Amino acid sequence: MTIETLNSGMDTIWVVLTAAMIILMEGGFALLEAGFVRHKNNVNIIMKVFVDITIGVLCFYLIGFGFMYGSDLLGLIGTNGFMLKGDLSHLDLSISLDTFWLFQGAFVIAVISIVSGAVAERINFRAYILYAVVMTAFIYPIAGHWVWGGGWISKLGMLDFAGSAVIHALGGFSALAAAIFIGPRKGKFTPQGTSTIALPSNLPLASVGAFLLWFGWFGFNAGSTLSATDVRIGHIAVVTMLSAASGGAATLLYTLFRYKRSDAPAVINGSLAGLVGITAGCAFVSDEVAILIGAVSGLLMLFATNWLESRRIDDPVGAFPVHAVSGIWGTIAVGLFSTDVGLFYTGNWHLLGVQLLGLVVLCIWGFVLTWIGLSLIRIWIPVRSTEEEEEMGLDISYHGVLAAYQENEFINYQDHYTEFNKKDD
Amino acid sequence: MTIETLNSGMDTIWVVLTAAMIILMEGGFALLEAGFVRHKNNVNIIMKVFVDITIGVLCFYLIGFGFMYGSDLLGLIGTNGFMLKGDLSHLDLSISLDTFWLFQGAFVIAVISIVSGAVAERINFRAYILYAVVMTAFIYPIAGHWVWGGGWISKLGMLDFAGSAVIHALGGFSALAAAIFIGPRKGKFTPQGTSTIALPSNLPLASVGAFLLWFGWFGFNAGSTLSATDVRIGHIAVVTMLSAASGGAATLLYTLFRYKRSDAPAVINGSLAGLVGITAGCAFVSDEVAILIGAVSGLLMLFATNWLESRRIDDPVGAFPVHAVSGIWGTIAVGLFSTDVGLFYTGNWHLLGVQLLGLVVLCIWGFVLTWIGLSLIRIWIPVRSTEEEEEMGLDISYHGVLAAYQENEFINYQDHYTEFNKKDD
Amino acid sequence: MTIETLNSGMDTIWVVLTAAMIILMEGGFALLEAGFVRHKNNVNIIMKVFVDITIGVLCFYLIGFGFMYGSDLLGLIGTNGFMLKGDLSHLDLSISLDTFWLFQGAFVIAVISIVSGAVAERINFRAYILYAVVMTAFIYPIAGHWVWGGGWISKLGMLDFAGSAVIHALGGFSALAAAIFIGPRKGKFTPQGTSTIALPSNLPLASVGAFLLWFGWFGFNAGSTLSATDVRIGHIAVVTMLSAASGGAATLLYTLFRYKRSDAPAVINGSLAGLVGITAGCAFVSDEVAILIGAVSGLLMLFATNWLESRRIDDPVGAFPVHAVSGIWGTIAVGLFSTDVGLFYTGNWHLLGVQLLGLVVLCIWGFVLTWIGLSLIRIWIPVRSTEEEEEMGLDISYHGVLAAYQENEFINYQDHYTEFNKKDD
Repeated sequence: MTIETLNSGMDTIWVVLTAAMIILMEGGFALLEAGFVRHKNNVNIIMKVFVDITIGVLCFYLIGFGFMYGSDLLGLIGTNGFMLKGDLSHLDLSISLDTFWLFQGAFVIAVISIVSGAVAERINFRAYILYAVVMTAFIYPIAGHWVWGGGWISKLGMLDFAGSAVIHALGGFSALAAAIFIGPRKGKFTPQGTSTIALPSNLPLASVGAFLLWFGWFGFNAGSTLSATDVRIGHIAVVTMLSAASGGAATLLYTLFRYKRSDAPAVINGSLAGLVGITAGCAFVSDEVAILIGAVSGLLMLFATNWLESRRIDDPVGAFPVHAVSGIWGTIAVGLFSTDVGLFYTGNWHLLGVQLLGLVVLCIWGFVLTWIGLSLIRIWIPVRSTEEEEEMGLDISYHGVLAAYQENEFINYQDHYTEFNKKDD
Repeated sequence: MTIETLNSGMDTIWVVLTAAMIILMEGGFALLEAGFVRHKNNVNIIMKVFVDITIGVLCFYLIGFGFMYGSDLLGLIGTNGFMLKGDLSHLDLSISLDTFWLFQGAFVIAVISIVSGAVAERINFRAYILYAVVMTAFIYPIAGHWVWGGGWISKLGMLDFAGSAVIHALGGFSALAAAIFIGPRKGKFTPQGTSTIALPSNLPLASVGAFLLWFGWFGFNAGSTLSATDVRIGHIAVVTMLSAASGGAATLLYTLFRYKRSDAPAVINGSLAGLVGITAGCAFVSDEVAILIGAVSGLLMLFATNWLESRRIDDPVGAFPVHAVSGIWGTIAVGLFSTDVGLFYTGNWHLLGVQLLGLVVLCIWGFVLTWIGLSLIRIWIPVRSTEEEEEMGLDISYHGVLAAYQENEFINYQDHYTEFNKKDD
Repeated sequence: MTIETLNSGMDTIWVVLTAAMIILMEGGFALLEAGFVRHKNNVNIIMKVFVDITIGVLCFYLIGFGFMYGSDLLGLIGTNGFMLKGDLSHLDLSISLDTFWLFQGAFVIAVISIVSGAVAERINFRAYILYAVVMTAFIYPIAGHWVWGGGWISKLGMLDFAGSAVIHALGGFSALAAAIFIGPRKGKFTPQGTSTIALPSNLPLASVGAFLLWFGWFGFNAGSTLSATDVRIGHIAVVTMLSAASGGAATLLYTLFRYKRSDAPAVINGSLAGLVGITAGCAFVSDEVAILIGAVSGLLMLFATNWLESRRIDDPVGAFPVHAVSGIWGTIAVGLFSTDVGLFYTGNWHLLGVQLLGLVVLCIWGFVLTWIGLSLIRIWIPVRSTEEEEEMGLDISYHGVLAAYQENEFINYQDHYTEFNKKDD
């Protein structure tokens, strides 16, 4: 047994365990989103997460990974590594290539799951599958190449440790584009322009989701070191915890004093906003700054939620406020507060400028490519559910089943399916 | 601090963490099964999992482990190691004996939990407890000894890395025997022979179960190295992910095109089938083969489900299709696709023959011993719920409570129990 | 790469991963408690856990940690380390200070979550926030200093490996004080003194909670080594498993034979009692003793539950029976059964005396300080919900939302909030 073998084994188990934690976050996304949306669309939103974790993962394996981490072409795109084939020695990994892929594969399903929430309750299921392919094979991997794969933005020196920008701002702006493209759920805004709310189908389930996400985030941030001997691991985990706590505390107290009641969905999303906000800077900022980042993330999430309502944009689970807004703030915060190169510590504006430039590029990329992608899909099939499907609920419409039954009787198998098939005629 | 100490510590935390992940799979089984069965039997199915994880674990500690991993007698059975006592140096472990036991104890509760699903909604609870004793103390450990404990099948060279055969095929055939022995739920098949379906009590809960199982499977497969410096860990985790994704994708797309809707329980079970299928070969096959194994596992699961219906065998949560069928396919696939010794890579039929022999032995052993076990139990107590118990629901019948109450009033304690006690008179 | 770097990295990932597992236990507490209480108070109990994990964690960061682990003053209190500032070299850590803080922060939220259960369904939400501050900043940290921070009890030689006494007995007696202080839920005891029961809102959810707690407990106990090369890790994990299994098995069989039905909440709490009971001795007792500790913990929990009912003390989720009673028993059991220094192995009464002294001090401290804390809070705001709030349910009263809605219609946003605001006028 040599020390190199040990080191390599340790890095491997660290990355495999944290990747598994991130993959469990899909359970978190599924429950959070299912708990927040209306009862009749619970199964559909979970099935969309299954699309992410099955078809999305395979697309990233077959196509996306090569674009993201293959040999760089002009700073724009990777050119090999599809199906993990080819010479990827430029990655200079201390772990095996496939272990590295697993971790990156866990990331890509987070991105697409962000969009999943914004189009909840009204996207055509087949269109969603196609969009998931586009996102996991092209949109995210190419942008990811620029920042993390040795592309042009990384050469400028952008700092985004675990993805406030690459994952969350990009995912959040893609979500915004998709939400606008598809339009609001039927009945969400009255003809007079008044906003209404959908009652959450299950807040305890949503909270399980939040706890699973919180747990997985330790893998997300600390695992991004890709090395178990990285001395920053403890600090990363601590600021992740502090920022999440601070985001949750800020929304809890704000809604308590402002509305005289602590709003449960706001507290859940506030904690998640704190987690998103610290994702870029977890390796670069101090504890105190983490608490600040979390609190601001939580409050910005609240204001952004109200702003979306006022703009009549329908984002059922708050994907844009949680991911895009906190992600942008978190990425900017690195430019301001990075202990080594941030504006407030060095007086140097360079990093802040790069962070802003990177953000603008990533947000526009996500928004525009999503818009184009959905436009292309619409040529072939409708991207939006029919009024009838939406009314009936996507669970029955696309999956032939409701989320929960209290009935204890058996029902006729043929009738069950015949009845649904009638709908398709 | 020596390098040996580090190595041993690293192996230990690897095995303890992955064992904990596998134990969390019991939560996955509980929710998956509870979500799939009818509302009135939710508590009972969870309590059966508690039987597995409490009484089952203790039986394996007291008896089963010795039969499985004790000093070999004629290739048939272990003879010491009960309660971890005696000389077990033949195991040649790099971790402590009790750490090894923990991992094996996590495995045994998976086996019995497979059967738990097949007898759902109609087994007498006391009979189930006795059966769990038989399974964890005798049926599984003895068969496990043959393949993993140095017994006769292992000497032939069977390859079953983490248990497609030993855990899943054996468990699945035991489940089949139990399902046939006990008979279908009342009303599942009409007098005219038509099949009916039970409406799932809670698909979001079932999906949490699936995500917990998926997470735990990384522990199951990668942890089976029992060594953190095993260079195969990354690859094992990757093919586990790919096969699960492929199994889920195959069922999602198949049901979408075949039935015009993606069937949620099928997708959930398809992913699990992919996980079962790759369990034997995760250390032996390539990425591409893993994708193939997963897809075939998912589709076979679907066909086997229909076959069971046509044979009028009632397996409420699909234990046989998911575990037995995918487990058999996964074990055969090693014989075909093992990069080192599989038929398609070497032209040598030897491994395939051994795999098939092992499978036949394990499946017959599971089926027959379960049949005998239940027959012996029936001499003493009924193995099947009474019609009245089944009608009323096993939750009330055996546990005196329903799964969920919307009522917000307090009720009289004595009345509550008196009412139930009346039933027993 | 040096061996010291490897060692330090390994300790760090071990502590970070186990801390994340403990933090996930908050999800377990939330679901367990939500599942056990009445439907109308589900959101509130989860929001209280969010108070613990957000405000509680921040208070421990700002204040509590320094009192607990700062430089000792007269054996009574720590005096620096607030916000992790100052010289804490006396801790002599092999991991970084912030990694150590994370693990301790995960512990503190367990303590406050214990109290959360006992005051369920009737505490004023703002009062709970203040109490959480008092507990996480003062009550627990100061007592923790005595036993784990180098204070006077630790100098006597008390053995409490992962906190049967410091976490569970202290938390459980604080819970008892709070339950008595606040009084029983309206309707829990009839004017004639008869006890009634509340019907659990969701037992499957409660069981998910139990499985998450079980999983996290491996982190709690084994992670308390704070070192990945501690040779006791495997043993700790094994006795944790055995004691939990034994606690669950004992309650399952006892209720089966005594009441003719296995009581689901009792089995869940019995397993948790087994986990609490082994927490002090997991590094010090043998496998057989662990099985004994677990079984006795489970049974004592049952008797203590009945005792509370007979005393007309209302502890909705069994915080006192599970945590205080099993915690006391587990701490005493170390005095009796510690392989190195326990009474039954050495004939020496010393350790038993120290354990009893420590217990008495911790239980009185928790009880009295909680009583004082709530009394002080009551000067400012009511600690108990109004009758109207309690009747309406705390979810609507404090959070303006119910736990679950089957409605699929949108409702008017302004009306929704206006209606609630009326209540406050």
